[in-house]
Amino acid sequence: MQEHTVKAFDEDIVKLRGLISEMGGRAEAAIDHAMAALTRHDLDAASRIIAEDKRIDELEAAVEKLAVQIIALRAPLADDLREVVAALKIAAVIERIGDYAKNIAKRVPLIGRQHQIEALSVLPAMAQLASDMLHDVLDAFAARDWEAAIEVNKRDRAVDDFYNSLFRTLLTFMMENPATIGEAAHLLFIAKNLERIGDHATNVAEMVYFAAKGVHMAERERGDDVTEAQ
Amino acid sequence: MQEHTVKAFDEDIVKLRGLISEMGGRAEAAIDHAMAALTRHDLDAASRIIAEDKRIDELEAAVEKLAVQIIALRAPLADDLREVVAALKIAAVIERIGDYAKNIAKRVPLIGRQHQIEALSVLPAMAQLASDMLHDVLDAFAARDWEAAIEVNKRDRAVDDFYNSLFRTLLTFMMENPATIGEAAHLLFIAKNLERIGDHATNVAEMVYFAAKGVHMAERERGDDVTEAQ
Repeated sequence: MQEHTVKAFDEDIVKLRGLISEMGGRAEAAIDHAMAALTRHDLDAASRIIAEDKRIDELEAAVEKLAVQIIALRAPLADDLREVVAALKIAAVIERIGDYAKNIAKRVPLIGRQHQIEALSVLPAMAQLASDMLHDVLDAFAARDWEAAIEVNKRDRAVDDFYNSLFRTLLTFMMENPATIGEAAHLLFIAKNLERIGDHATNVAEMVYFAAKGVHMAERERGDDVTEAQ
Repeated sequence: MQEHTVKAFDEDIVKLRGLISEMGGRAEAAIDHAMAALTRHDLDAASRIIAEDKRIDELEAAVEKLAVQIIALRAPLADDLREVVAALKIAAVIERIGDYAKNIAKRVPLIGRQHQIEALSVLPAMAQLASDMLHDVLDAFAARDWEAAIEVNKRDRAVDDFYNSLFRTLLTFMMENPATIGEAAHLLFIAKNLERIGDHATNVAEMVYFAAKGVHMAERERGDDVTEAQ
């Protein structure tokens, strides 16, 4: 590439990273706020989270537009092209994570204030793990740090363990308290959403690894998929 | 574009459509086979579906590679660029649909042979609706037929109705038969997976519409999102 093209490309990449970073920040906040709304039964906060998800969708569209523009106009090669494609794919994953947070917010009105369900105290801790994974994997993307990406992947096991434990707890609770089966089912879906957020963070980790190294992450470094069937 | 470039672009697009069409066919088959495996408690068939999902993932990678190549080398404009980007996004959605089918297959061993649960007779009909939506929206993509895409969207309402009805049926069943709550919870997740497949078919419909018209589908023509909170 000629010098001015290189400079233009670098500027575009900085913009692209900025968009991804803003998306990531919003998705993280959406997860945290959704859990706060759930534990406080705060319907207004839940509505705000649902409304603000539109902004994440718009940012994804902006990433897509810019990435396609970069590929078409700057014709990046090898490492650079991989990074642009990674940005495109990571944006799509963050949009999904935003949807999971929105989905949790939508269940807030369906779960009562009683807080008698043990899950309500475990879910926020699980959400924190998933939200931290998202945060750290996006830092890894920004720093092109494939080693950090592998570290994030290892943490998915803890999210899965939370999920498996909650699945059993909630089922036992349902059996013992048939009257609250509806609420417990919603909590089960919320746990599943959080487990999926952890999975998606590992997908991003694999994209970061591939963008940085040009080869796919080895099977053993990927998150073990030990919960999908529950 | 010069004539030879136009021809090369047309050939690339044909290849791209071919890949999408193969992906779609495989995802549809995966849904149908997963439901057959579920109703027959066929563990071998379930394992095959899980193994074959890899092929859908590989096809998505092939679509991505070809789409990026087309954008970089052929520098398509307007309608053509929109179609290539749509293919890229549609491939990602089909991959997700494949994952949902795989997820259903993974639950097959967890649901007994007894078939005493009413849901087991309703789920295949719901799956058929969702799988038909996927089929028809991919036909609409191949034909650049935005009117057909709108028609597909309208059908998501029926899938949502199935889901809402199953949600209630399964919860009632759980209350009356606490001993089978585990199985019923898995059926609930399967119903949710099918409902999400319907949603994703409507996402594809919106992409087909945008690719063909260059503007986004009007809100009223989108599928009503009436189930996300359940």
